[in-house]
Amino acid sequence: MDAQLVNCFVDSTLHVLNVMASTRAEPGEAYVKENQIARGDVSGVIGLIGEVSGTVSITFTQESALAIVSRITGGEFGELNEELQDAVGEIVNVISGQAKQKLEKLGWSLLKSAIPTVITGKNHTIMHITTFPIIAIPFTIDDGEFTVEVCFEKFAVAACLEE
Amino acid sequence: MDAQLVNCFVDSTLHVLNVMASTRAEPGEAYVKENQIARGDVSGVIGLIGEVSGTVSITFTQESALAIVSRITGGEFGELNEELQDAVGEIVNVISGQAKQKLEKLGWSLLKSAIPTVITGKNHTIMHITTFPIIAIPFTIDDGEFTVEVCFEKFAVAACLEE
Repeated sequence: MDAQLVNCFVDSTLHVLNVMASTRAEPGEAYVKENQIARGDVSGVIGLIGEVSGTVSITFTQESALAIVSRITGGEFGELNEELQDAVGEIVNVISGQAKQKLEKLGWSLLKSAIPTVITGKNHTIMHITTFPIIAIPFTIDDGEFTVEVCFEKFAVAACLEE
Repeated sequence: MDAQLVNCFVDSTLHVLNVMASTRAEPGEAYVKENQIARGDVSGVIGLIGEVSGTVSITFTQESALAIVSRITGGEFGELNEELQDAVGEIVNVISGQAKQKLEKLGWSLLKSAIPTVITGKNHTIMHITTFPIIAIPFTIDDGEFTVEVCFEKFAVAACLEE
């Protein structure tokens, strides 16, 4: 597994949640996803493309999404409504944007972002259609958990960065 | 609404379903999506990026996904399992790939594709986080329905192609 790639996404996630939502998240151990175990209630997905082509998703439980977005907006969310979905799209956009900058500093070509998509549905699953490794990073906050998933094709570019 | 953009996706969808799944689909009237009404049981999402940045999603009911994938694979699918999800990812990949070629012939810059993501969950909704128009194209087949959604930023590029 590419430690630098993982670190870029861990650091970006922790930083963005801290700054946007005053929320301290605890990263669990990253793993290569063998099957589609990321289940959640609301997910943000965004494509990133440059020399490498990739996709990033963040899958939240309802509890963790409500808690984080309530803190970002200063409002109180009791359901997964449109405003909350917008905020989830923004979170995935900002976290992937930060990670992108970090990856560029490590020599990855400039990545451009596609338009984020937010999926809402109780206990849905996310599957990335690629033969390349999918890295999953679980996070825990006081109010629940969420999982960041990252996959890039032409993974050799990432591998060569590995220490 | 950009008629050429809509036509690229309608033609690609009809062609791919016909060739891959021997399925005749009937396009309904395309509309600009005002709210998140695309509901389904399995969706494929893919980012496309070039000079413009966009995302394409296709949201199937369980019935339409089972019928189409059974015809593609020659198998009989009774549930939304991993093999079916793989096939849905491939469908969105191939349809967006065909549409991409058509758009390039119309003068759009070369678009690259991100990695497709497939979401499975009963009655989930899809929302694209953009201030640009989201075009939805409903399709009907004998076994149910599905919706293709397309959004591109820097939409002026598309608009200038409009007849």
